[in-house]
Amino acid sequence: MEILGGPLFAIAGAGESHGPGVTTIVMGCPPGVRLERAEVQRYLDRRRPGSNKHGTPRNEADRVIFTAGIFNHEDQEALLAGPKVKVQEDELHWETSTYQDGFTTGEPIAAIVLSTTSKSQHYEQFAGERGEVRPGHTDLVKHKKSLGFVDYRGGGRSSYRSAISDVVGGSVARIALKQYFGTLFVSNIIQVGSLKTESRLADIFSTAQTDETRANDVLTRLESNTIYSLDADFAYEAGELIKETRKQGDSLGARVEVMALNVPALIGDPMYQSLKLKLMGTLGGLNAVTACEIGVGADAASKMGSENNDPIRSSGYQSNHHGGMIGGITTGMPLLATLTFKPTSTINKPQQSVRKDLSEVEHELKKGRHDPCVGVRASVALESRMAIEILNAVLMHQAMRIDKSQFKLF
Amino acid sequence: MEILGGPLFAIAGAGESHGPGVTTIVMGCPPGVRLERAEVQRYLDRRRPGSNKHGTPRNEADRVIFTAGIFNHEDQEALLAGPKVKVQEDELHWETSTYQDGFTTGEPIAAIVLSTTSKSQHYEQFAGERGEVRPGHTDLVKHKKSLGFVDYRGGGRSSYRSAISDVVGGSVARIALKQYFGTLFVSNIIQVGSLKTESRLADIFSTAQTDETRANDVLTRLESNTIYSLDADFAYEAGELIKETRKQGDSLGARVEVMALNVPALIGDPMYQSLKLKLMGTLGGLNAVTACEIGVGADAASKMGSENNDPIRSSGYQSNHHGGMIGGITTGMPLLATLTFKPTSTINKPQQSVRKDLSEVEHELKKGRHDPCVGVRASVALESRMAIEILNAVLMHQAMRIDKSQFKLF
Amino acid sequence: MEILGGPLFAIAGAGESHGPGVTTIVMGCPPGVRLERAEVQRYLDRRRPGSNKHGTPRNEADRVIFTAGIFNHEDQEALLAGPKVKVQEDELHWETSTYQDGFTTGEPIAAIVLSTTSKSQHYEQFAGERGEVRPGHTDLVKHKKSLGFVDYRGGGRSSYRSAISDVVGGSVARIALKQYFGTLFVSNIIQVGSLKTESRLADIFSTAQTDETRANDVLTRLESNTIYSLDADFAYEAGELIKETRKQGDSLGARVEVMALNVPALIGDPMYQSLKLKLMGTLGGLNAVTACEIGVGADAASKMGSENNDPIRSSGYQSNHHGGMIGGITTGMPLLATLTFKPTSTINKPQQSVRKDLSEVEHELKKGRHDPCVGVRASVALESRMAIEILNAVLMHQAMRIDKSQFKLF
Amino acid sequence: MEILGGPLFAIAGAGESHGPGVTTIVMGCPPGVRLERAEVQRYLDRRRPGSNKHGTPRNEADRVIFTAGIFNHEDQEALLAGPKVKVQEDELHWETSTYQDGFTTGEPIAAIVLSTTSKSQHYEQFAGERGEVRPGHTDLVKHKKSLGFVDYRGGGRSSYRSAISDVVGGSVARIALKQYFGTLFVSNIIQVGSLKTESRLADIFSTAQTDETRANDVLTRLESNTIYSLDADFAYEAGELIKETRKQGDSLGARVEVMALNVPALIGDPMYQSLKLKLMGTLGGLNAVTACEIGVGADAASKMGSENNDPIRSSGYQSNHHGGMIGGITTGMPLLATLTFKPTSTINKPQQSVRKDLSEVEHELKKGRHDPCVGVRASVALESRMAIEILNAVLMHQAMRIDKSQFKLF
Repeated sequence: MEILGGPLFAIAGAGESHGPGVTTIVMGCPPGVRLERAEVQRYLDRRRPGSNKHGTPRNEADRVIFTAGIFNHEDQEALLAGPKVKVQEDELHWETSTYQDGFTTGEPIAAIVLSTTSKSQHYEQFAGERGEVRPGHTDLVKHKKSLGFVDYRGGGRSSYRSAISDVVGGSVARIALKQYFGTLFVSNIIQVGSLKTESRLADIFSTAQTDETRANDVLTRLESNTIYSLDADFAYEAGELIKETRKQGDSLGARVEVMALNVPALIGDPMYQSLKLKLMGTLGGLNAVTACEIGVGADAASKMGSENNDPIRSSGYQSNHHGGMIGGITTGMPLLATLTFKPTSTINKPQQSVRKDLSEVEHELKKGRHDPCVGVRASVALESRMAIEILNAVLMHQAMRIDKSQFKLF
Repeated sequence: MEILGGPLFAIAGAGESHGPGVTTIVMGCPPGVRLERAEVQRYLDRRRPGSNKHGTPRNEADRVIFTAGIFNHEDQEALLAGPKVKVQEDELHWETSTYQDGFTTGEPIAAIVLSTTSKSQHYEQFAGERGEVRPGHTDLVKHKKSLGFVDYRGGGRSSYRSAISDVVGGSVARIALKQYFGTLFVSNIIQVGSLKTESRLADIFSTAQTDETRANDVLTRLESNTIYSLDADFAYEAGELIKETRKQGDSLGARVEVMALNVPALIGDPMYQSLKLKLMGTLGGLNAVTACEIGVGADAASKMGSENNDPIRSSGYQSNHHGGMIGGITTGMPLLATLTFKPTSTINKPQQSVRKDLSEVEHELKKGRHDPCVGVRASVALESRMAIEILNAVLMHQAMRIDKSQFKLF
Repeated sequence: MEILGGPLFAIAGAGESHGPGVTTIVMGCPPGVRLERAEVQRYLDRRRPGSNKHGTPRNEADRVIFTAGIFNHEDQEALLAGPKVKVQEDELHWETSTYQDGFTTGEPIAAIVLSTTSKSQHYEQFAGERGEVRPGHTDLVKHKKSLGFVDYRGGGRSSYRSAISDVVGGSVARIALKQYFGTLFVSNIIQVGSLKTESRLADIFSTAQTDETRANDVLTRLESNTIYSLDADFAYEAGELIKETRKQGDSLGARVEVMALNVPALIGDPMYQSLKLKLMGTLGGLNAVTACEIGVGADAASKMGSENNDPIRSSGYQSNHHGGMIGGITTGMPLLATLTFKPTSTINKPQQSVRKDLSEVEHELKKGRHDPCVGVRASVALESRMAIEILNAVLMHQAMRIDKSQFKLF
Repeated sequence: MEILGGPLFAIAGAGESHGPGVTTIVMGCPPGVRLERAEVQRYLDRRRPGSNKHGTPRNEADRVIFTAGIFNHEDQEALLAGPKVKVQEDELHWETSTYQDGFTTGEPIAAIVLSTTSKSQHYEQFAGERGEVRPGHTDLVKHKKSLGFVDYRGGGRSSYRSAISDVVGGSVARIALKQYFGTLFVSNIIQVGSLKTESRLADIFSTAQTDETRANDVLTRLESNTIYSLDADFAYEAGELIKETRKQGDSLGARVEVMALNVPALIGDPMYQSLKLKLMGTLGGLNAVTACEIGVGADAASKMGSENNDPIRSSGYQSNHHGGMIGGITTGMPLLATLTFKPTSTINKPQQSVRKDLSEVEHELKKGRHDPCVGVRASVALESRMAIEILNAVLMHQAMRIDKSQFKLF
């Protein structure tokens, strides 16, 4: 099942790169969370290729429309103030209002982001048994796996466009978490190609509780930089490198930190359903990610136990090598993960490849834009996926704390 | 998670009675199944209240729109010939084609059925803490469970309108099953209120294989009768009874048989995940169902073992008391379930009830249509739910029969 | 996955009729529930064929041994006072204590019930390609499904012996529910073959809350009757009928009511994961069950809505046609299900059948005991399965009621 | 639910460090896999602390006993040749044989590994509200999460002893995969503390198919070295470093590669259920792991796309930067993951900590062995977890390739 998160809070997603739209069903959000479309839209805007100057030069409006799971018993006008949707089939046509501003009801929430691009012509190079295979892409495995029925336009479902569902669902989760616990999410690009920065989220956010104003200052700084990084100089240079690499027809890898602040403690079940296991999978499973690290991550290998163990005082943990989880359970310290992205597979250089019938070809991309560094626009997807797993773990923990007063009708 | 079926073939559904639309994501359909929108639409038309003369007199156009999971590598014109969808947000507007005719890709399929009704005014009687509770309805439990945030318009998500997702997902399943195995589904209303018929599907379909022509004859007969029943006289009388009951402001229960023909044998895992367990849950879990019987059902209690055991010969089972499953595994004989529906809860007579604040009220429905016998339009939902579980069980069985040749790329 | 219940409280079971033992892992029990082995053993004793005079005349000691998930920080002696287990492998041997009395830790609980019977010789009639198929049994479907690798001794895994796991897991659930809510479970055999009784649980337990003393009086009455039925005369006659039927080599169906008292209200999610759906599946899925009814069940078909709707006053529901659930959500009224069991498939009369190679045979059972009315010892399995789904639904409901104070470490 | 893998092939595990035993239920293994206890035992032997000279000096016999899910229709003597189990409860005692050599039936397999250690006395330091918290350990979070009911003996369930279930289940998976596809698993320790080796599995196994003899040569080499590493010199030095570190009361991190050879191609579903997501979670979720990398892993960040994309020819992929998966789907190339383990939390040096009541304490371990480098004995757990996810993905892929001939009974 194409489900992310769960078993309590989870999303189902559907939709291909060049299909009519990306549909998301968000399941398991508790009732009573105030949900405004504009807030989800803001997160979605961060995902768009055009959200920085260095992504794919495609104009994706990506407006989210909510069609289920929200109600507003106080103000039905506000509820129904979302975009109008009209459908025309031959002479039949009908129209409906959609949701703008309300509260979750506890029922599944549905959202759709329609595609605004016209029908693509430039995928003939990849069509059919004589279609070419882009190295590093899913073209060949999906052609064979689907017995030839795959949608080969763009990346089909394997496109980064699918991450719209992650962001829609993750936005619901982070809005809920903020309302319950003041939880906030932040991310930081720390490497693009060989360029690195020493700026780290852990240096800024090192205590269990963070003031929202302070977090907002950091977010403003991140937004104002060329790419989503704390270090303005690095961000500028990385931007130039991306520009240059695009011209050369090549692509770049990247590393990105993602962090949750004001994290509810004690969430995560031990062992097979630990929050660590879930986060490693859900973050590490994002397209193009090749490494997922928690806390100090790979650096833990060369540390001594006496150095790596975080001292504890009555006030709490004194450091955060553990990245917010011990034994897969949260301590309340900031939750930190670092992700590595491989360089985008699509490049404009000639490569040794095959056609789908396995005959050899010197492959060179004929048409089509490409995004030379997918890692730089992935940060909102990472924050979203982290939020989904945190909210699910919150519900799992609450489930085990039975309060008899919640089970009364009369 | 609002998931029906699974873990391999499953649907996620969202949408309330009076919300913008009902959204469905269908997960786990194998690639290569020819899927035409018109065929799904035909099943959906059977679900509509207006599909017979005795349901809710509401005009629900209920046109399905497919937005993901289908492709047509041979004919992209046919693929994109579905209804056009336009969205307008302030001065922004965009438009997209939707899918009409293609093949499943193996990726999740998304569909939406928009609501065509305008904003409902006649639910003030049920709004807020002073809102009245309809006996037999979910009004009170859902008000309390949702902490007051429930969508109280119509039945909200608990409306029969949610069964649109069942039908959309079930249609995909039955289309696939027909292509793989020639599997067909048929249902038969056998009781409305105290009126009963002796006509039984088991008398017509008593062998493992059924010719499609013969099944179609029966389907034509069912379609031509006043309600979906084999017995024309009973159907007519039941229709009159429903009409009369509506006038009286009361409602009626019903019993419905549902059967699968040309069922693949050996599907269903024993014990905790048996097909019997799954069908009992998925069929018996439908709104308003109060009893689910398999094969001879409740009559088994008074049979002797020597009478109830079905004799076996080289050619197969000689009778079908077992209703197509033994130990929760299919034998290839027709799969038979019989469902009882309670009388529709909404009636137009005064009833003792409370407001949501638990103060007592003599409740009388102020406005609003009602459907005096929900059982008579449930048959397509039952067939759909049965198809979902059968396709899931087919995939589960196939999973255990490993064919090395399916795991090659070069 | 061989999992019953879930996704929060669930059991995994393993073990065949004539294998070394039946193993159970109970997942998702909250920490702090007092768990005494003796109490679980009492429920298990009710499952044994020898628990009444009319079951299989096989002496199954069925002693449960707990090996994980329990701790007792106050009294480790009490914790470790369970049976000693010794293992001998060639010259190696080792021994361990097992758990007797402690508290759940929140981690998975493991239990094993070893088989005490010696290796069975009398299944040669069923072995191999020339093995005979018992009509009504899983012999043939499981032989084919398993490609011939099935354990054909007794019913293998399809034996009623597997219900040991249901009872072990269900006992944990009911013990927890009793501690949290005072929830109790009771069942009542209402039909054996053509013999019926009019005594109904609903006549005795018709209000939301039941005094424990009163419930215990009923339980004592049930225990003292020949079979587990409220009606002593019926129970006696049914006992005689079973005895007679055994002599004739035939078998009998049965109907059994199962009820939960002092049920927590508001549990169960609507629609696809409703408690009604879950109970229909989990109860209706038990071996040999052919019908599952909730509340008034199949009788609902002939009721008018005005008659079937239960009136509501400030004090609560005034009647319980709804059987404790509306829209799949509990109202706090007693939860009632009625199950029909088919007559036991194994009989001692000649029957038309086939061998596993599909050649025809006049089948007559050579050796082996049989249980002429499996329904009469199923009641504890039904109570157990109901408890599993109720506890799971309790946790699901609690999950959505977030209490910030439960998420603090410092 | 304490479930690893799934939804088709999965394991349930239970058991604490110092409890009576570790129980495992293996679900979803297809029928017909030859399963010998001795082979599983060999894998289990590699997990034991005493399996190398540098682990915990505790004598864990760890003999696996199979009690369900295996049958041998050809040789019931061989089937029942496993260790005898005796249970004694007061004057009652009973005994059973267990399984030694048979074939999987398709039903759940149960195994138990009893503990051989006597009741531990040396955990008083950690008991109760005044118990001390070991920094880096789960002591505090699990105390609070369990409301004080946690089993604090050893690591309780969070101990590495729980990985017995991983190995039992993973052994079943790898035995099945070897029989179906010749799949083999191998691992290689590449770092201990600051000591590193340049020897890499990718340099030895760089083609889609590997000869079993060649793989066995490598396995022999790994077994013969001081620790499980390809590089004998590094292994020796690492061994000396571990010894030295133990003396100093400190601990060491490590990095380990794990690889699957002769991997079936096309397995893994795209996106939310991709094999990459599953492996990242299942491998990265193992106790003490802080980083999980696939293929080139974190090095991908500084590579150009033109360098990182693997060329394709008719014969297959020409290099394996992708580590065996593209888009989360296998290409048939060796599957490679690299895991980082943090230094063992338990050390013998004084540390700042708290008691469970949050009062501060200068913590120093009073008694108890410790394992200074948990990473060095984790390799068999990693191979096992990888095998579990691969077999599950195999079944998921096969499920979508329907072969009508597998659904016939007569």
